[in-house]
Amino acid sequence: MKAWRFEGGFGFENLRLVELPDPVPGAGEVLLEMRAAALNYRDLVVLRGQHGRRVQPPLIPLSDGVGVVAATGPGVTGLPPGTRVCPAFFQHWDGGPPPDDLEAGRLGGPLDGVLATACVFPAATVVPVPDHLSDAEAATLPCAGLTAWSALMAAPQICPGEVVLVLGTGGVALMAVQLAKAAGARVIVTTSTPERAAQVAGLGADLVIDRGATPDWAACVRAATDGMGADRVLELGGAATLPDTIRCTRVGGQIILIGNVTGNRAEIFLPAILTRQLTLRAVTVGSRQGLAALSRAIGQHGLRPVVGQTLPFAKAPDAFRILETQSVFGNICIRIGD
Amino acid sequence: MKAWRFEGGFGFENLRLVELPDPVPGAGEVLLEMRAAALNYRDLVVLRGQHGRRVQPPLIPLSDGVGVVAATGPGVTGLPPGTRVCPAFFQHWDGGPPPDDLEAGRLGGPLDGVLATACVFPAATVVPVPDHLSDAEAATLPCAGLTAWSALMAAPQICPGEVVLVLGTGGVALMAVQLAKAAGARVIVTTSTPERAAQVAGLGADLVIDRGATPDWAACVRAATDGMGADRVLELGGAATLPDTIRCTRVGGQIILIGNVTGNRAEIFLPAILTRQLTLRAVTVGSRQGLAALSRAIGQHGLRPVVGQTLPFAKAPDAFRILETQSVFGNICIRIGD
Amino acid sequence: MKAWRFEGGFGFENLRLVELPDPVPGAGEVLLEMRAAALNYRDLVVLRGQHGRRVQPPLIPLSDGVGVVAATGPGVTGLPPGTRVCPAFFQHWDGGPPPDDLEAGRLGGPLDGVLATACVFPAATVVPVPDHLSDAEAATLPCAGLTAWSALMAAPQICPGEVVLVLGTGGVALMAVQLAKAAGARVIVTTSTPERAAQVAGLGADLVIDRGATPDWAACVRAATDGMGADRVLELGGAATLPDTIRCTRVGGQIILIGNVTGNRAEIFLPAILTRQLTLRAVTVGSRQGLAALSRAIGQHGLRPVVGQTLPFAKAPDAFRILETQSVFGNICIRIGD
Amino acid sequence: MKAWRFEGGFGFENLRLVELPDPVPGAGEVLLEMRAAALNYRDLVVLRGQHGRRVQPPLIPLSDGVGVVAATGPGVTGLPPGTRVCPAFFQHWDGGPPPDDLEAGRLGGPLDGVLATACVFPAATVVPVPDHLSDAEAATLPCAGLTAWSALMAAPQICPGEVVLVLGTGGVALMAVQLAKAAGARVIVTTSTPERAAQVAGLGADLVIDRGATPDWAACVRAATDGMGADRVLELGGAATLPDTIRCTRVGGQIILIGNVTGNRAEIFLPAILTRQLTLRAVTVGSRQGLAALSRAIGQHGLRPVVGQTLPFAKAPDAFRILETQSVFGNICIRIGD
Repeated sequence: MKAWRFEGGFGFENLRLVELPDPVPGAGEVLLEMRAAALNYRDLVVLRGQHGRRVQPPLIPLSDGVGVVAATGPGVTGLPPGTRVCPAFFQHWDGGPPPDDLEAGRLGGPLDGVLATACVFPAATVVPVPDHLSDAEAATLPCAGLTAWSALMAAPQICPGEVVLVLGTGGVALMAVQLAKAAGARVIVTTSTPERAAQVAGLGADLVIDRGATPDWAACVRAATDGMGADRVLELGGAATLPDTIRCTRVGGQIILIGNVTGNRAEIFLPAILTRQLTLRAVTVGSRQGLAALSRAIGQHGLRPVVGQTLPFAKAPDAFRILETQSVFGNICIRIGD
Repeated sequence: MKAWRFEGGFGFENLRLVELPDPVPGAGEVLLEMRAAALNYRDLVVLRGQHGRRVQPPLIPLSDGVGVVAATGPGVTGLPPGTRVCPAFFQHWDGGPPPDDLEAGRLGGPLDGVLATACVFPAATVVPVPDHLSDAEAATLPCAGLTAWSALMAAPQICPGEVVLVLGTGGVALMAVQLAKAAGARVIVTTSTPERAAQVAGLGADLVIDRGATPDWAACVRAATDGMGADRVLELGGAATLPDTIRCTRVGGQIILIGNVTGNRAEIFLPAILTRQLTLRAVTVGSRQGLAALSRAIGQHGLRPVVGQTLPFAKAPDAFRILETQSVFGNICIRIGD
Repeated sequence: MKAWRFEGGFGFENLRLVELPDPVPGAGEVLLEMRAAALNYRDLVVLRGQHGRRVQPPLIPLSDGVGVVAATGPGVTGLPPGTRVCPAFFQHWDGGPPPDDLEAGRLGGPLDGVLATACVFPAATVVPVPDHLSDAEAATLPCAGLTAWSALMAAPQICPGEVVLVLGTGGVALMAVQLAKAAGARVIVTTSTPERAAQVAGLGADLVIDRGATPDWAACVRAATDGMGADRVLELGGAATLPDTIRCTRVGGQIILIGNVTGNRAEIFLPAILTRQLTLRAVTVGSRQGLAALSRAIGQHGLRPVVGQTLPFAKAPDAFRILETQSVFGNICIRIGD
Repeated sequence: MKAWRFEGGFGFENLRLVELPDPVPGAGEVLLEMRAAALNYRDLVVLRGQHGRRVQPPLIPLSDGVGVVAATGPGVTGLPPGTRVCPAFFQHWDGGPPPDDLEAGRLGGPLDGVLATACVFPAATVVPVPDHLSDAEAATLPCAGLTAWSALMAAPQICPGEVVLVLGTGGVALMAVQLAKAAGARVIVTTSTPERAAQVAGLGADLVIDRGATPDWAACVRAATDGMGADRVLELGGAATLPDTIRCTRVGGQIILIGNVTGNRAEIFLPAILTRQLTLRAVTVGSRQGLAALSRAIGQHGLRPVVGQTLPFAKAPDAFRILETQSVFGNICIRIGD
């Protein structure tokens, strides 16, 4: 098999295309011939070697991918050869509350990821994906897709008629817009440019606020909700947006903390949270059960994750460089095989 | 004001059109000029005098109605004259778990109902309705609409991709099909005739099973779900259907008990429930908070309750007679005021 | 009747003992002969005139009190004269999620409070209290008691064996220690002095950390929990403690935001919240249903809220002064009547 | 290793003590030197060959047991030799909702059980047990203990002051009484004899009803709860008791369906369930996460499952015979090793 692997260190200079022994599925395991992978912001953090002591080379990067079953070890049922599946982002989180040592089971660091032509996973951690998706689209489900799903399904779960505010137009945000519409919500999205505004409106958003044209977007959200604010906010911004987010969330509402691209240290005004009885809930991807439910919902609704650009396996490092520029609308994916 | 009222007893012979003093809203109360009312199966039980000791004449019947605010008592805000609202079915259940003495606050018995030209309610128990609905459509929300909503929202709440089975095509069932689709579910409906099958398919059901042509509809549900069964069943049948319902509900699934038109005494096979870890949950209408959430969802989606027939106020008794025949597809309503 | 009332402004200089007309219960209302009241930190905010535009004189202060039913208006059942009850802190929140305009129904501002010899409330907003409590003890239930209850019962609810960390030894904290023990939790409390440590240990706390002797109390909490941290933290400190609280909460755990005595503007480190999948949930007192459940639990367990000092009605202003000093262990109460 | 095994068929005549090859832990697995096992009613069903097609000889029986870690395969951390653990009853249910094919992973049929001197399990499916328990006591946790826990923790979870009714005095019931008391509930138990009544009162039950002396025990439960009924009932009886259980459950309350020792076909009166808005929820043991939470709670409270009789490994078949007589108060266990 072939794989891209950090060897001897992180950074572009240590990301090498290597030939490794073909993996063999043991008892309860499945061998996947990989078809595509997708990048997430976190993969840049790994590339930069900023992911903490636990994530060490040699390491095959990327958590998100899709492959087809090529062989199975003893005791595996229900996964005939050719089944197209995604491995779960957290290999040790099947369902229920997250385990204490969640991070130990993460693909793409500390565990080897999916940027390889063949991978072996426990059969219990892979989930079949809908037929209507391209390989690149399917590859985005384990992290970007599941994060959006978990954010919308965190109890109390979204209900029809609820107002959901999604900050930004990254991969999680675009999936969240589609899923929130499928769940019957009214969806408001903030974007940074008129081009993005038009694109996200095409996904079904009920209201798109261009933050450039409308710097006080929080006031705009309140105005659009009879002064009450959004029932749920998917907070993908971080330090720079959280204070405004708090201002435009409804009494008793939920702010789902997901990202921190605009900064790590947020100042929050406690009386605003207390008076409005808000809940701030961090969501980090989700469990394998969540991935299965997401896959089913995407199949039922024929949803398509937005893929902005797809590169061949040989050019995998370029995918990291493109992600760094934040210039692409939609997920950046890598084709694997042929 | 004018009202239809049971006087001296129940039955058609005691249902009289009477002239009563105009009601005056006290502190915290609102006077409604009624516009329409809708009938439910339970109203027949009241008509027949079979509703138990607590429900006694004189009694104005019908729980479901809509009116416009004509005047407000001291201390009422946020309900300007002309606002169109529905009163809550249970006047003492605002939210949270049902109160112990739920039945004491029910409109249409033991409390006076809405079949009158004017009614007074506490302002805290009325809910504004969406503009796009006709008066007759709006009148169906408090019982038929809210029952469907509560059945779908009972925790764990419905989620996109979930399979919902709805038994029959009564008023609750038709609303449930529309709401379940709005919430992103895959919806299976059983009907008794090919005509009804065509009608309910028009509301968006993914699969309609004609029980006449397919007596083993439970097997059909299992076949349509890869052998797993439905995640949630709205059990509107009762004794005659419950055993089959149990057979076609998924492991860990929920059967929402709502109606008992086919009989009161159901025999259940405990091992089937235990092995599949089913939950059987009775839902009876719902709270005022539920009604407000339903109204918002219906407004967001532009849904229209199915109204099968509308009679003028003067012919109100005929509405009961038509309901008895079970021949109408959709709710039976009564126009009030010109 | 007699009442203390802010007249013409706030501050001690405007808090006057006045004679007012005896209130008369209307339909659905109950007249209470008040027995005791209790102070909360928020009452100081009102005294200082810092509670916002909505809270204006003339105003009878204090939200927390207990009285006996002296008379009832038409239509009230189940509350015979002599029944001892507490009025709900939020008069418009019966159950379920908080209403949008929660603050409008708060006793002690903007609505008149309980520092009076007689009060009238809707019968639906009062809750009987257990017999074993003194009047002063019972008076603490509506705010301090219910806040502790809501913090422990916020979903996912506390379960036996769970580790609960309570910051400080104010009225809410002391009630929370007792309730958490009644619910089977393992309870860790932080205190500022050795005296308080001994007192709170007497209430059943499993571990008491003296912050003076152990400045890195967060490390101490982690050490006491095999490095995992507390499942739930009752964050009564505010800006000065929140960063440490985040450090010692378990993966997937909950931080219940209640107070902000150490400051309003908290800086939070988002990666710590995201990596550990924490939930920060603001709890503000609670609903009438919560008060009823609290009262039942206190009755079942024979719990006694800690009353630090009780003053006579004539000396009510002194109670505010004593509260300001923060020198009393337990609630500060006022006897009314006799 | 030695094991008792059904060979060639079920029944006492086919239950043989055999010598088998010593098992070796593979990657991610743990080898346990078994210390004790416990019997459940279901084990009798297996013995009688009535457990369905899937459960076939050769089969080592019994799901409940405890052992100490003797060795671990590659990749196992956190389980040093000597750690005393229980394997999870359902090997494929880690947390969250039950998987569709729950039964496939059950110990004691279809998977080999614990009545052996050595067993191998995936490390991710074993749970450490509290030190204060004897081996026999610890052996009862996976099924009897966890069933009681799941029944009390099923959402909405038990809260302090809640009234819990437990039917009977079997192993699940006795553990439920102790756990419900630890969680702060008020506990009512029904028993069949005065001797049992005294024994269960010793475990902390607040009220014990001798069904012999009080045939209308449902009326007794209502009388003891101001006419309202129990908030939650652990229905361990089945067909013969369910109708009465429905009569004495509070509006909005939960009946947890667990057992069916008095019969499989129950007739339920739907109007009673609908009017009272009851939930009937089947609970079947629970997940590994539940077992871990149970173990923690038992450790925190120092609870001791009731062991009625313990037999040596050589006399294992006698344990089945004793269980059949239903004459023992508490669990029947088997010592393994020395």
